[in-house]
Amino acid sequence: MNKHSLLSMKDISSEDILGIIKNAIGFDNFKDWRLPRPHTVANLFFEPSTRTHFSFKLAQMQLGCNSADVHTLTSSVVKGESLYDTVKTFESIGYDLVVIRHPQDEYYKELKSINIPIINAGDGMGNHPTQSLLDLMTMYQEFGKFEGLKVAIVGDIAHSRVVSSNKEALEKLGSQVRFCAPKQWLRDGYESMELDEAVKWADVVMMLRIQKERGAELSELSDAQYLDLYGLNKKRYELMQDHAIILHPAPVNRGVEIDTDLVEAEKSRIFKQMSNGMLIRKAVIKRALGYSSFGLAL
Amino acid sequence: MNKHSLLSMKDISSEDILGIIKNAIGFDNFKDWRLPRPHTVANLFFEPSTRTHFSFKLAQMQLGCNSADVHTLTSSVVKGESLYDTVKTFESIGYDLVVIRHPQDEYYKELKSINIPIINAGDGMGNHPTQSLLDLMTMYQEFGKFEGLKVAIVGDIAHSRVVSSNKEALEKLGSQVRFCAPKQWLRDGYESMELDEAVKWADVVMMLRIQKERGAELSELSDAQYLDLYGLNKKRYELMQDHAIILHPAPVNRGVEIDTDLVEAEKSRIFKQMSNGMLIRKAVIKRALGYSSFGLAL
Amino acid sequence: MNKHSLLSMKDISSEDILGIIKNAIGFDNFKDWRLPRPHTVANLFFEPSTRTHFSFKLAQMQLGCNSADVHTLTSSVVKGESLYDTVKTFESIGYDLVVIRHPQDEYYKELKSINIPIINAGDGMGNHPTQSLLDLMTMYQEFGKFEGLKVAIVGDIAHSRVVSSNKEALEKLGSQVRFCAPKQWLRDGYESMELDEAVKWADVVMMLRIQKERGAELSELSDAQYLDLYGLNKKRYELMQDHAIILHPAPVNRGVEIDTDLVEAEKSRIFKQMSNGMLIRKAVIKRALGYSSFGLAL
Repeated sequence: MNKHSLLSMKDISSEDILGIIKNAIGFDNFKDWRLPRPHTVANLFFEPSTRTHFSFKLAQMQLGCNSADVHTLTSSVVKGESLYDTVKTFESIGYDLVVIRHPQDEYYKELKSINIPIINAGDGMGNHPTQSLLDLMTMYQEFGKFEGLKVAIVGDIAHSRVVSSNKEALEKLGSQVRFCAPKQWLRDGYESMELDEAVKWADVVMMLRIQKERGAELSELSDAQYLDLYGLNKKRYELMQDHAIILHPAPVNRGVEIDTDLVEAEKSRIFKQMSNGMLIRKAVIKRALGYSSFGLAL
Repeated sequence: MNKHSLLSMKDISSEDILGIIKNAIGFDNFKDWRLPRPHTVANLFFEPSTRTHFSFKLAQMQLGCNSADVHTLTSSVVKGESLYDTVKTFESIGYDLVVIRHPQDEYYKELKSINIPIINAGDGMGNHPTQSLLDLMTMYQEFGKFEGLKVAIVGDIAHSRVVSSNKEALEKLGSQVRFCAPKQWLRDGYESMELDEAVKWADVVMMLRIQKERGAELSELSDAQYLDLYGLNKKRYELMQDHAIILHPAPVNRGVEIDTDLVEAEKSRIFKQMSNGMLIRKAVIKRALGYSSFGLAL
Repeated sequence: MNKHSLLSMKDISSEDILGIIKNAIGFDNFKDWRLPRPHTVANLFFEPSTRTHFSFKLAQMQLGCNSADVHTLTSSVVKGESLYDTVKTFESIGYDLVVIRHPQDEYYKELKSINIPIINAGDGMGNHPTQSLLDLMTMYQEFGKFEGLKVAIVGDIAHSRVVSSNKEALEKLGSQVRFCAPKQWLRDGYESMELDEAVKWADVVMMLRIQKERGAELSELSDAQYLDLYGLNKKRYELMQDHAIILHPAPVNRGVEIDTDLVEAEKSRIFKQMSNGMLIRKAVIKRALGYSSFGLAL
């Protein structure tokens, strides 16, 4: 496995995380910075994606990369080729980098003998490191530090790809993390809190998406009932501290986990997260291609 | 809404129309002209398209834009996200421009608070402004004026996206427009004419496509019968004036609305329209990105 | 038909073949060589493809071309347009070159009046000239000549797109070709050989893919039985000469036509073929756009 690959948050130290975040913030000021040569990237998406795929795509364009988009519907994957043979093919053809989203947890364990760098754009319910990094970046941009930050993670804890890596990274960086969820969606060993308490306590209220398309629904509740019991409604928004912010990975189920009017409210950073996601992906692609995160050249 | 958006022909004055056409004609002579920096575009096609999509794509390439193609089959739209949230996502990620085709009439009414420019590549049975512009360009190229031009629009008037905007634009520019169609496809207030009369009278015979894929068919007639009664067959071609031309938006139903041998006949401008479509889209993209249509730099 | 089109191996002489191979080998040393201007290409894939499509795509990127990918699932082809009208559309829009894969044998016979160059990326069970060229290149790279080379082609002779053109080209270039297959997959007039004999005799053992997705299977045999009777297993690998090599067009049915452990064995050139495929496509695209295969500029 190439040492510049980014498969899970476990691959990078706290120093790496800060380095990537600072690099991403730097890109915000130097939009026209390009890699010294036009590298080539294959985006392999084995699941539908808009936000992740097309922010990787814009990051590639802005870095001067040329990229190919491979969808399972229209490729040889329908001929039953293994993931290893597919990725080995892209390496052999001559691509410099692959970005992969795949429904199987830790699919990359099959890819140990691939030599080109791999960026994980989401594996099953396992990892989604660029999503974690963009969450962290948005907090850092707001508060300038992680030390002592109070983060409440709210909603479908059980099915989220980012909960465990965000918890681990935030705790390592000195933040406190608490969880709010219906009982069946909590995880063992995760410290829970009542939602009304949490929104008063938190600097960051991180809402999770209910993954309806994966069958994750509390079928006994209507959307309105869910919002009232477990979602961020207007009453709870009023309980939040003045400086506190709302995060959500999107796409949002409006009126379910969050009141539709709050999506673009003053404390919401939901669309800011998308801007940041593109910048984080630029930093991660640059790193994957072997360019230092630090130094004069950004 | 960004003031450089192009949603329907109502957004642009007669002066704008002439400016865009002249800019497009200019592009024909300066193929290598590029925008001063590599802008980024997302092409959002919620309906299948060849001609429109891939002429926008070539226009983007020739202008030096980088573009991403988003198909509903392979994106998060399958997760049930609203059009507003999807487009807001592309704006937030950082794209400079979106091109949208969508099956819903006037979908852009939901997009009023989007800040980046939007180019409408077709909405339901509503509008298709770049198609209207390429039709107008093809006439202007041929006759050098619109004043006094006689235009017969023939066929499926009821289901066409361009009929009403072409009628309005042509009349404003001083042309006369008449309509030929089976009764059930006429529209109130549209002046009709017998087809044999129309082909003798017209400078421009604009055939429309029968939208079979939308269920628009005269089921009581065979293709050959339709061609004989309402289509452009060889006999009617002979009735046309020497200088008159044929337009059709394509794809053509050969042997239905037009005899297959006439598609590339001397008076046909059907493939010329496709060349012009790409040039019009270059001019419209340049305008949407805030560059003047006039001036020395084309 | 444009004279630089490449539709089948019959279009090119032995001199052309050697010229293209040498050009491809040259590209291996000059990765950054670009065409003098950014040509535009449309890749029209009417069948799923990974290897062929994405090696054409990388070849285009490396040459500085801009390319559009057209999939039948998401284009107007669903509206029932003929192949001729589709390709004529891409020519009219203004693309410089089209690359086409299509399920119909010799689809290009309908395209005689198209003026832009066409590269055939596979037609039904007919031809696949860039696959033949990459096979030949891999042999030439290894042995430096074709004269006297012994080539055994093994497996599903009947359904392969490249067998007949490889046979013809190799014989013209001075090689000897023999065929090994179950009786129902042999072709008349093709000289057959026992498999155990062939692997001892051959300099090149070219395995073919069993096209399961086209219903080509020997249903009476399990995969393991097929491998034992007609595949390249470890026992036969030991019988091969020291200098002999294995080719396979991929995707490989591991454990059917070849033992899974042999796919990356020392004598295997299977992934090397993919690298070569990209280089061959660079040479073929350069030729199709009218640039000489020889000369100082590569």
